[in-house]
Amino acid sequence: MSDKHVFRLDELAELLGAQLVGDGETQITGLSSLSDSSAGDLTFYADPRYEDAVARTKAAAVLTRSELASFDGPQLILDDPFLAFLALVDRFHPPAEHIAGISENADVAAGATIGDGTTVYPFATVGARARIGAATVIHPGVHVGADVVIGDRCTLWPNVVVREDCRIGDDVIVHAGAVIGADGFGFARRGGAFIKVRHVGSVHIENDVEIGANATIDRGTLGRTLIGRGVKIDNLVHIAHNVQIGEASALAAQVGISGSSVIGQRVLIGGQAGIADHVVVHDDAILLAQSGVIGEIEERTAVSGYPARPHRETMRAQAEIRRLSSLKRRVRELEARLDVLRQESSSSSSPQKSPQESKDE
Amino acid sequence: MSDKHVFRLDELAELLGAQLVGDGETQITGLSSLSDSSAGDLTFYADPRYEDAVARTKAAAVLTRSELASFDGPQLILDDPFLAFLALVDRFHPPAEHIAGISENADVAAGATIGDGTTVYPFATVGARARIGAATVIHPGVHVGADVVIGDRCTLWPNVVVREDCRIGDDVIVHAGAVIGADGFGFARRGGAFIKVRHVGSVHIENDVEIGANATIDRGTLGRTLIGRGVKIDNLVHIAHNVQIGEASALAAQVGISGSSVIGQRVLIGGQAGIADHVVVHDDAILLAQSGVIGEIEERTAVSGYPARPHRETMRAQAEIRRLSSLKRRVRELEARLDVLRQESSSSSSPQKSPQESKDE
Amino acid sequence: MSDKHVFRLDELAELLGAQLVGDGETQITGLSSLSDSSAGDLTFYADPRYEDAVARTKAAAVLTRSELASFDGPQLILDDPFLAFLALVDRFHPPAEHIAGISENADVAAGATIGDGTTVYPFATVGARARIGAATVIHPGVHVGADVVIGDRCTLWPNVVVREDCRIGDDVIVHAGAVIGADGFGFARRGGAFIKVRHVGSVHIENDVEIGANATIDRGTLGRTLIGRGVKIDNLVHIAHNVQIGEASALAAQVGISGSSVIGQRVLIGGQAGIADHVVVHDDAILLAQSGVIGEIEERTAVSGYPARPHRETMRAQAEIRRLSSLKRRVRELEARLDVLRQESSSSSSPQKSPQESKDE
Repeated sequence: MSDKHVFRLDELAELLGAQLVGDGETQITGLSSLSDSSAGDLTFYADPRYEDAVARTKAAAVLTRSELASFDGPQLILDDPFLAFLALVDRFHPPAEHIAGISENADVAAGATIGDGTTVYPFATVGARARIGAATVIHPGVHVGADVVIGDRCTLWPNVVVREDCRIGDDVIVHAGAVIGADGFGFARRGGAFIKVRHVGSVHIENDVEIGANATIDRGTLGRTLIGRGVKIDNLVHIAHNVQIGEASALAAQVGISGSSVIGQRVLIGGQAGIADHVVVHDDAILLAQSGVIGEIEERTAVSGYPARPHRETMRAQAEIRRLSSLKRRVRELEARLDVLRQESSSSSSPQKSPQESKDE
Repeated sequence: MSDKHVFRLDELAELLGAQLVGDGETQITGLSSLSDSSAGDLTFYADPRYEDAVARTKAAAVLTRSELASFDGPQLILDDPFLAFLALVDRFHPPAEHIAGISENADVAAGATIGDGTTVYPFATVGARARIGAATVIHPGVHVGADVVIGDRCTLWPNVVVREDCRIGDDVIVHAGAVIGADGFGFARRGGAFIKVRHVGSVHIENDVEIGANATIDRGTLGRTLIGRGVKIDNLVHIAHNVQIGEASALAAQVGISGSSVIGQRVLIGGQAGIADHVVVHDDAILLAQSGVIGEIEERTAVSGYPARPHRETMRAQAEIRRLSSLKRRVRELEARLDVLRQESSSSSSPQKSPQESKDE
Repeated sequence: MSDKHVFRLDELAELLGAQLVGDGETQITGLSSLSDSSAGDLTFYADPRYEDAVARTKAAAVLTRSELASFDGPQLILDDPFLAFLALVDRFHPPAEHIAGISENADVAAGATIGDGTTVYPFATVGARARIGAATVIHPGVHVGADVVIGDRCTLWPNVVVREDCRIGDDVIVHAGAVIGADGFGFARRGGAFIKVRHVGSVHIENDVEIGANATIDRGTLGRTLIGRGVKIDNLVHIAHNVQIGEASALAAQVGISGSSVIGQRVLIGGQAGIADHVVVHDDAILLAQSGVIGEIEERTAVSGYPARPHRETMRAQAEIRRLSSLKRRVRELEARLDVLRQESSSSSSPQKSPQESKDE
């Protein structure tokens, strides 16, 4: 990492439009979380769960929504301390600069077009008729297939593969090793053997999408696999052929979605969750980590477990499973009590009958 | 994608040996599924679940086993509409052509042999004594290690890694980023630390195998890891050292198989399922998605859950878990009824005695 | 694979300091497991579970802790037969040699430093100011980012990506396709959309770590993600931003650990297990395969299931779930018995009253 970047706290207050409480001449040399801070750092307080950490932080100053009694040092007060903090990251950690142009060690097909300000690093390959927009960065070892279209301001980290005919919008980030547009897993089974279904569809990735390292998004069998605007996909996620994911959904690491399933907008999917094929998950649903979804999921429903059902039910069922031995004990007691009662009852009923019988006599 | 390919329906009928019903001069410009079709498309009807889609399809013509009353347009009638459809894919979407030869930007070791009609793309590396067959395609960034043997008509998509000594048969497809022959995960644990077990075995992949993007197949510790003929492996699957997989088995995405396990023939494994080490799964078994297999699985058995047991049992157990609160309520009611009965019984038995006593009086 | 290496058994005895029983002139041509052996092989017996395999092995000689009556051939007797066996692997399978130096087809930035005896293979890229130690091997297609530090005697297999600012100690092995230092999966959610949290932290990997093929270890948001000394990580494992893993822990394939979780020392994590964010797992804990950990795990505790709890409880609960239908039957019987008893009791109590009434008459 290069040189330290230093700012005075009053400079940062002005930059952010924040109210300054305390010494504006404080030198800020870095950014940190409340708990992992050093002298000179600026930190932020946004979540009441971390209230205890405020008193213990070593940071020099804190961004906060309202003045903190438990913090001695200077404070910057504004509406959204976390967003303000994020806005400062580029100041303290300027993003790497990429010199525009095509490396002479890259292999770009004659008919491909590369936009202004775009960088193509060594050992990247760009196929025939591919079109890459402006201010995009193609890192080393990336493969861009024939007829691929990539927008502006994208970053394809090293060794990403985008196969033929796929489309990527603007401001898309694809992390290292991700594979976009591999053949879907589709076969015709005849007599116990598999006949390959050629996958001649594609993948369409809309603007503002981020795709994790070593994730895989398969091309459609005939049509396309669609990743909607603003979707965020974590590492090692698998998305099968012809899946559609609605805008602003987020998929945590190692999630798997089977062929042709449709995921709504703003759906949140926890790590290692799996979704069967041809399933519909409606808007704003939440699939908890490791859930196994085999049927339709309603809007705004949180589900978990396998097969996934409402999370409350899963947790209640888990609690009841934990109490099963107690339930079993109660049944055993009931059986014992009933045996006793039965015996008492038969012994008490025989004297009871006897008076009657004796009467009949 | 390049130019449109257009055929007359009677040409296609002749090509497929199908019976033509309707206008043979109909121009067919593409292929599609029933539900995702446009004017000019040829589609197919093979699965009664999609019967409703026939009436709604926009396709110009349909491949079908028997004439469809619900479809107005021309029809091609033959025994296996889906296979016929697959046979046409290459006509409408001719596969990419690869100019045979070794790119001057590839790095092929002096002693390696490359077969006729094989293409080695830029930035691929081929190690010492490796032998690659005929008509095979080695895409950019692929690494073929020393002493590797690869057959004819294979495709290794970009950035595939095949490490030293591994063997790949004919007609094998390895999707982008897959790693074949990494060291198995084996260590000797001594005093809380791990001592590496060098893995000097290899991976042997038989003919007609397909391996998904970013999948990993580890080399044997001493012997080999074996992927049988016609096995299909989806993306992000992990196969550990010394595993053996029988012919024509299929593994969906993100499946993991631990060391030395033996999978039979025609076994179907659903997504995210896991198999412990040294386990035997017999022929024609079905492991449902996310199942966790820790013991032997019998032939033709469908299992699910963790630990995996017959799927019927899992589903029955799940249903019973869902009814646990009702069972608990019934136990509570039994307890209450028994309390009442107990009380009645003791109160009824005392009046019961009293008459007797009174009688005795 | 190159030439066969042949040793006399008495040579090997001397080399290992073993006691030789039987013919020292026996020619040993290879190493194998008990069950997968051929004539000429040396094998080892270390685990009583494989006692039966001793009688059936085809190996010429066996390493053992004490003389085996069930084996006819010569034997080498010493304290730790498996470690002795591992010590011989390099003799029979000499590791590949790498000619030190930087390939003219590699791309190494002007300011980067490469240690003595280190090999940089074709199509590898090394960024500005990166420092790579001595006797390290950088395989083809590897990307080493700017300001990365890598120690001595490391191996980075093909297509590994180590992004900017990350640090790797000595004697570290990173298998093909692994990605170290991708951005963590962190966003600020505002009005249903995600704002990217830039990840300016790094990954710090200590000495003697091994990382599996296509595994991903994300960089810290601000601080670092830490992989402790001697940690072993299998294929396709995901480790999120700011995770800390203590010394000598082992993570099997496809494990996922969410952001900021802290794993103790000597923790063993089974395949496909998942750990939520901000969770603490204490030293010597064991997380069984596929477990889903959402809360703190105590020292030396084995857990399984979702949500993970002590393995004994999980197995007991599973057993009780399997017996649920029997429990339900018992409740049904109780209900029936109680109905009968209730009826008997009321019918017996009514005649009981009648005599009294009749008396009153």
